[in-house]
Amino acid sequence: MSGWVKIAGLGPGNEALVTPEVTQALAQATDVVGYIPYVARVAPRAGLTLHASDNRVEIDRSEHALQMAAAGKRVVVVSSGDPGVFAMASAVFEALENGPREWREIDITVLPGITAMLAAAARAGAPLGHDFCTINLSDNLKPWSLIEHRLRLAAQADFAMAFYNPRSKSRPEGFVKTLEILRDECEPERLILFCRAVSRADEAIRITTLAEATPDMVDMQTVVIVGSSRTRVIERDADPIVYTPRFTP
Amino acid sequence: MSGWVKIAGLGPGNEALVTPEVTQALAQATDVVGYIPYVARVAPRAGLTLHASDNRVEIDRSEHALQMAAAGKRVVVVSSGDPGVFAMASAVFEALENGPREWREIDITVLPGITAMLAAAARAGAPLGHDFCTINLSDNLKPWSLIEHRLRLAAQADFAMAFYNPRSKSRPEGFVKTLEILRDECEPERLILFCRAVSRADEAIRITTLAEATPDMVDMQTVVIVGSSRTRVIERDADPIVYTPRFTP
Repeated sequence: MSGWVKIAGLGPGNEALVTPEVTQALAQATDVVGYIPYVARVAPRAGLTLHASDNRVEIDRSEHALQMAAAGKRVVVVSSGDPGVFAMASAVFEALENGPREWREIDITVLPGITAMLAAAARAGAPLGHDFCTINLSDNLKPWSLIEHRLRLAAQADFAMAFYNPRSKSRPEGFVKTLEILRDECEPERLILFCRAVSRADEAIRITTLAEATPDMVDMQTVVIVGSSRTRVIERDADPIVYTPRFTP
Repeated sequence: MSGWVKIAGLGPGNEALVTPEVTQALAQATDVVGYIPYVARVAPRAGLTLHASDNRVEIDRSEHALQMAAAGKRVVVVSSGDPGVFAMASAVFEALENGPREWREIDITVLPGITAMLAAAARAGAPLGHDFCTINLSDNLKPWSLIEHRLRLAAQADFAMAFYNPRSKSRPEGFVKTLEILRDECEPERLILFCRAVSRADEAIRITTLAEATPDMVDMQTVVIVGSSRTRVIERDADPIVYTPRFTP
């Protein structure tokens, strides 16, 4: 079997954050599959077929990629950010595990990328500079009770936290509940950052506190970072810097 | 002030994982500072001064970088992986906050990189494909009691986990205690991955279970990933794939 699948992370949006490994994979591909806005980031060229599909068809898209690779194509599955963080890698492996046995002979690799929380943290300073956790706030694929359990234990562990998918049209109330839980577990002065469209032209980073945060500060383009109890702000004439020190007494 | 500081992530070791943004910063720099093995990854050239320093002098190195930038130099502080994840960004901001007031006028940015846990996860499959946490197991800068507290709550939250600095010469017993805590909180079949020198020529990934794990499986080059209760293995003729499904019932 000469085909392959590479599940590649395009980073948060800026082309200067795409690794050379991913650029090279795209140059060798015969086919690219992915969600419409991510496929739109790949330049068309002769010999390359672009297969853009809508959101929420991750398994169909994965099966298509594996079928094409089994037929000898060189397929790149594109994700935003890092494919292993709430993106396409797990979906492709679900399709692989549940698919025909011969798919397990396909040459399949994951090419890491700059995930949104780390791009956002870099723009703000270093709020994830010490122990932290990463939670997908969508309850499409898990019960809300598990999200609440994880939020409470993460706060009690004094992790800094990064949240993906904080709000969608179908779940406007999810982030309202998240703020209630955090206010229940943390002090009102706890720092919270709303990082929108990081590395892109319309980037916006808002630094506030749990007391001042409101649900309308998130949308589907936002990654949220909550500091630990040790996270601090350095005020400057330029944008303030938010960081978590390395030392905990 | 025309100088600047860019705190840049070189990724886990393979040059194909260095972002173009970081490559460009290095091309513009007058000075590079960092830990000896990371500075050794930067090619010498005319007009560039390399300042390599030993481990455990992060604050001295940060102050040196800020002093040079205040004097007009273009300084890149190099980290392995991502500078915001247990690396140089927090150290530079500690030095900035505690330094002379005029340092706050320095143009200072963080350039993200591929952090070790995400490079390791990509090589293994997608073990961090759902909610996870990231813990530095070194007790140089925090009490062991806090590490134990975080490990227990993280296991109770059923996070996948990534551990940095699992073992050092001065703390051979730390990882012994970590395994004891995990065995206390998780089932013996829980998957654990020891990922050494990821993306480099001597890369080695070992997949085992908590029951079979032993402290000698870690060294200072190792990132450890512990699956959640949902993390699975796909067996193949090639290396097995470890992934965490997106769906939790």
